[in-house]
Amino acid sequence: MARYFKSDNTAPVAPAIMDALAAANQGYCSAYGDDPWTERLAERFDQLFERKVRVFPVATGTAANALALATLVPSYGSVFTHEQAHIVRDECGAPEFMTGGARLQLLPGEGAKLTPAALTRGLADHPTSVHTVQPRAVSISQATELGTVYRPHELHALSTLAHAHGLAVHMDGARFANAIAFLGCSPAEATWRSGVDVLSFGATKNGAMAAEAVVFFDPDRAADFEFRRKRAAHLFSKMRFLSAQLLAYIDGGLWLQLAARANAHARRLAGAAGDLLLHPVEANEVFVRPGAEGIAALRAQGFAFYDWGSTDSGEARFVVSWDQPDEDVDALCTALEGIRSP
Amino acid sequence: MARYFKSDNTAPVAPAIMDALAAANQGYCSAYGDDPWTERLAERFDQLFERKVRVFPVATGTAANALALATLVPSYGSVFTHEQAHIVRDECGAPEFMTGGARLQLLPGEGAKLTPAALTRGLADHPTSVHTVQPRAVSISQATELGTVYRPHELHALSTLAHAHGLAVHMDGARFANAIAFLGCSPAEATWRSGVDVLSFGATKNGAMAAEAVVFFDPDRAADFEFRRKRAAHLFSKMRFLSAQLLAYIDGGLWLQLAARANAHARRLAGAAGDLLLHPVEANEVFVRPGAEGIAALRAQGFAFYDWGSTDSGEARFVVSWDQPDEDVDALCTALEGIRSP
Amino acid sequence: MARYFKSDNTAPVAPAIMDALAAANQGYCSAYGDDPWTERLAERFDQLFERKVRVFPVATGTAANALALATLVPSYGSVFTHEQAHIVRDECGAPEFMTGGARLQLLPGEGAKLTPAALTRGLADHPTSVHTVQPRAVSISQATELGTVYRPHELHALSTLAHAHGLAVHMDGARFANAIAFLGCSPAEATWRSGVDVLSFGATKNGAMAAEAVVFFDPDRAADFEFRRKRAAHLFSKMRFLSAQLLAYIDGGLWLQLAARANAHARRLAGAAGDLLLHPVEANEVFVRPGAEGIAALRAQGFAFYDWGSTDSGEARFVVSWDQPDEDVDALCTALEGIRSP
Amino acid sequence: MARYFKSDNTAPVAPAIMDALAAANQGYCSAYGDDPWTERLAERFDQLFERKVRVFPVATGTAANALALATLVPSYGSVFTHEQAHIVRDECGAPEFMTGGARLQLLPGEGAKLTPAALTRGLADHPTSVHTVQPRAVSISQATELGTVYRPHELHALSTLAHAHGLAVHMDGARFANAIAFLGCSPAEATWRSGVDVLSFGATKNGAMAAEAVVFFDPDRAADFEFRRKRAAHLFSKMRFLSAQLLAYIDGGLWLQLAARANAHARRLAGAAGDLLLHPVEANEVFVRPGAEGIAALRAQGFAFYDWGSTDSGEARFVVSWDQPDEDVDALCTALEGIRSP
Repeated sequence: MARYFKSDNTAPVAPAIMDALAAANQGYCSAYGDDPWTERLAERFDQLFERKVRVFPVATGTAANALALATLVPSYGSVFTHEQAHIVRDECGAPEFMTGGARLQLLPGEGAKLTPAALTRGLADHPTSVHTVQPRAVSISQATELGTVYRPHELHALSTLAHAHGLAVHMDGARFANAIAFLGCSPAEATWRSGVDVLSFGATKNGAMAAEAVVFFDPDRAADFEFRRKRAAHLFSKMRFLSAQLLAYIDGGLWLQLAARANAHARRLAGAAGDLLLHPVEANEVFVRPGAEGIAALRAQGFAFYDWGSTDSGEARFVVSWDQPDEDVDALCTALEGIRSP
Repeated sequence: MARYFKSDNTAPVAPAIMDALAAANQGYCSAYGDDPWTERLAERFDQLFERKVRVFPVATGTAANALALATLVPSYGSVFTHEQAHIVRDECGAPEFMTGGARLQLLPGEGAKLTPAALTRGLADHPTSVHTVQPRAVSISQATELGTVYRPHELHALSTLAHAHGLAVHMDGARFANAIAFLGCSPAEATWRSGVDVLSFGATKNGAMAAEAVVFFDPDRAADFEFRRKRAAHLFSKMRFLSAQLLAYIDGGLWLQLAARANAHARRLAGAAGDLLLHPVEANEVFVRPGAEGIAALRAQGFAFYDWGSTDSGEARFVVSWDQPDEDVDALCTALEGIRSP
Repeated sequence: MARYFKSDNTAPVAPAIMDALAAANQGYCSAYGDDPWTERLAERFDQLFERKVRVFPVATGTAANALALATLVPSYGSVFTHEQAHIVRDECGAPEFMTGGARLQLLPGEGAKLTPAALTRGLADHPTSVHTVQPRAVSISQATELGTVYRPHELHALSTLAHAHGLAVHMDGARFANAIAFLGCSPAEATWRSGVDVLSFGATKNGAMAAEAVVFFDPDRAADFEFRRKRAAHLFSKMRFLSAQLLAYIDGGLWLQLAARANAHARRLAGAAGDLLLHPVEANEVFVRPGAEGIAALRAQGFAFYDWGSTDSGEARFVVSWDQPDEDVDALCTALEGIRSP
Repeated sequence: MARYFKSDNTAPVAPAIMDALAAANQGYCSAYGDDPWTERLAERFDQLFERKVRVFPVATGTAANALALATLVPSYGSVFTHEQAHIVRDECGAPEFMTGGARLQLLPGEGAKLTPAALTRGLADHPTSVHTVQPRAVSISQATELGTVYRPHELHALSTLAHAHGLAVHMDGARFANAIAFLGCSPAEATWRSGVDVLSFGATKNGAMAAEAVVFFDPDRAADFEFRRKRAAHLFSKMRFLSAQLLAYIDGGLWLQLAARANAHARRLAGAAGDLLLHPVEANEVFVRPGAEGIAALRAQGFAFYDWGSTDSGEARFVVSWDQPDEDVDALCTALEGIRSP
């Protein structure tokens, strides 16, 4: 039977979240978010982020990202983002769709991170006029697609530059929990205190069934989000079940506990991978280069994972899930060590 | 405490469906629909509809409708539909959004039903040329927004006319279960055997948490549905939980049992409403005209429901849910009778 | 040889406008509107409308209308307009396209005119919520599609109502010249002094080759028009030739002279049509009901025109062009009289 | 007074084309392309391209490109193109707009030319799945944005590769005349015989007022072009004036004569530029690196042109127009030589 390291979305739902769904399944309440769970969610997110925010539950990370961007960027606008970003490579053009055809302008950067230098270069390479799309946002991933994590001072530097050029800052936080667990700072420090304007707060990959939240730190920016969410068919009638998932997810710090466990396992894998390792392991993703033979050997041992990079790169990605069995990790450590010293 | 007749989406989730979610929450499996539940769903829908179909789970009825229409209608196309249809009045322009700007062309009709005569008139009133939008589909609701139900011969007549004019036939089946429970015919007879090309198969309003299915009876029409679903952010990573809901929903005929119970309660209300009744009660919706005073009295007794029609129409809508407490229905019957003969 | 009454766009270009094109065809100048003609156009339109305006040349009436609406209405918005409006029936969904999928909400009205009563009814019939499109504009045609003309007090009443509900007022002035020639008032009085926010100022139908102007009376509303125009491929590189047409068109009141002549001819036809006439003739369009036999007889005599209304209505539309030959009008008068008293 | 080398769209209209406009300005004819000029255009383009084609006049190059791509690529599709392409850098996102949000996937290449190697690499770097946009077309510019020209065998190799991967081939021929004048081959050889599926046939930059043509070599691909053109507001009512421009443009080989003259002047400038030259001069564009001082000196002498590349590159672009005064070219030759050997 396979040991799944393909993605953290191959995992089941955390028991506390299943319990919360059962608990929410009592009696009648108004639909579309006019319910006690969603009301409590608003309060809890204000506390979590230590300020008044606007929080909107949706069910997929792609919805969170694309709807957030649609609120920030007009159809004739553009978004600077990393060329490896999920919004670029894994969303089938959802940002273009939700914005009405805005463009993603791609920037390079080590570890899938944007830097002020790269953004400065991007802006210089794309002088604007009536003939060009108009840059209006920067989108970054935290943790990134290569499992690295922006430090608050990095976020601050990027945001300051972005704002100086009239660009809003969006953070794709599909693995926000893993990033916060790594940083050990407050969610506020890693977002609005560092200049982030809108956050896609992920939960699905870290133990929820299907729940994400779009968080606006400047409530004014949220003006038309509700219409866009409804129009894109992402307003749930039985909203209580989205809100209940998110409430349970943050209750008692569950989200950080789950993420910390996955991160710790990933660090163990990093240690086992040794010089096969491709990027610093700061969250729950481990990128290695076992070579074609090594990859075949790992598959033969029942590990399920994705090849990475170009076709014959000999690279692989392993993602550790919130409840990844210890023995899966043990086995993979052993297998990686075996490839290093056969 | 309120007795909720506002909509069937104010109800909780059926226990069998909650159980199915718990049962699906075991171990790891591939994401995005490459899982045993979704595979089984395909088989079960083939059986349910007595032919090879393509079935795609989504989480909201608006997603089902708008994505189905986007597959049938180009951006320069149009959809004939009833002026009271959910896609017209309650989806914030989702059909326009998903199609890239196609138009809904509105037709009148008693009981919110389209007739061949109305469609013929609509086609005559909208002669086509390069200067006009191009009609490509008809969308009907089953049961309708006024709680009435198309008979198979009515569907057949409409579909034959539609197809003769090159229009595909879409059925918004948000309350498809209620319609089938009323008709007592097979799902096949009420859909593809009567000329329906694509069905939005609803489950959320009738006991699911958030699960609908788009069913293509002609698999060729589904060619690009998957890209559109992903692009609109409606492809769920943990798809098993959508599929599991739908499997439990149809397993052992649960869907029809739940709908039949709601329908029966609605018929009781119809009897109690007597001459206050506005439309035949064929599904789980009851439209009455208690007058402004009657409406105020009902609210004072704790009934939660929507006013209907224009502001001072004195009309109200009551929707019976799958597990509407018997005593709610008893109380409403008594209250309606009281209004008739004070 | 045919006598063309099909539309005023079957006519050639006025000599003064051809001369202006030739005069503009001297030497080099910057492209995309940074030229002396376009600069002068801005000045001349400020004078014409007796205030500071923003004027943007485009080449088709559909571009003017749809781009104007796109500036006023978000993708989740809607536009109230008459069910016979050109934007509804003759633009193949251009408003939906340019706005990103906004909806046209159709209102009835005699002579193709909107009234405050109809708009009030429309607003009442479309209560808004997060589930509905959001009304943001009213679009009216001046002259209307049935050849009638709004009086300033009618415009004022409509605009006041629209503004009170947060709706901007757009005027489709494809035949604005004919309307002003009829009213005898100033362009200012018939537009911004009566509450119009944006005007599609037509010239093509009244003697230009291909030139229209979008006029914003509130410059702030024009903020993103330039990006939308470019993005929709309506920014002309050799802009001087659009601006030169528009300059010649208004120079010395040419536009009103041409329109007045066409209007006068239309009034002659109205007299000849007598009781065959369907609508008051206030501009250059004449709607009559000669019956099927009468229509056939007119066609046999070489008149080219469009049937109107439903297939067997026996109705016809005649449009008089700016240089319609006198003998065409004489002949049609005689023919119409012949039908009345055979 | 300035000597304009900013772009070929700063030039006036060729006398023969002005004469054709005057000649077309006689009498009445049906609108929207149902006229003798447009009919003749269809015949003449069949002859020009030595096969049955479908030709659609529009007024801007951006309209030609974006509408052509919209016919080839669905909203969830993508277009491989050079990172310097006009559709990327100078059309404010028109391709995204007209396609409903498809993506441009950018490839590098010397002289702004795509190569099979670059396309192969692009395809490998963008493996497709339901999570990605779907490549459906390649768009190339002929002549390119850097004044180079694809040879037929280069086109053939690219097209063969593209077709093997299910990609249609679009050619942006804003300067198609300059390319053909350089190649000396037939238009057929440089297009469909080399695998091009759709051509944006430019005329505006080479002596027309505002006229381009979209040419489909496979008529089946044109199925819905007319609706898209109308919907985007690019169907001209007085179409005869577009068709008349295009007829005069190709009549007697005028288009090639005008382009040949501009090309010859550009070659003279290339000679004068010597080692300042940045790219081979194969059409009517000349890219040089005079340095910041050289650029300032040229401006001081009254030459109008654009800086090129990044802000402080010291590079400049000179475009020679169809009727560029000989003395402008003489003067620029002298000036460039002066910079080389001060």
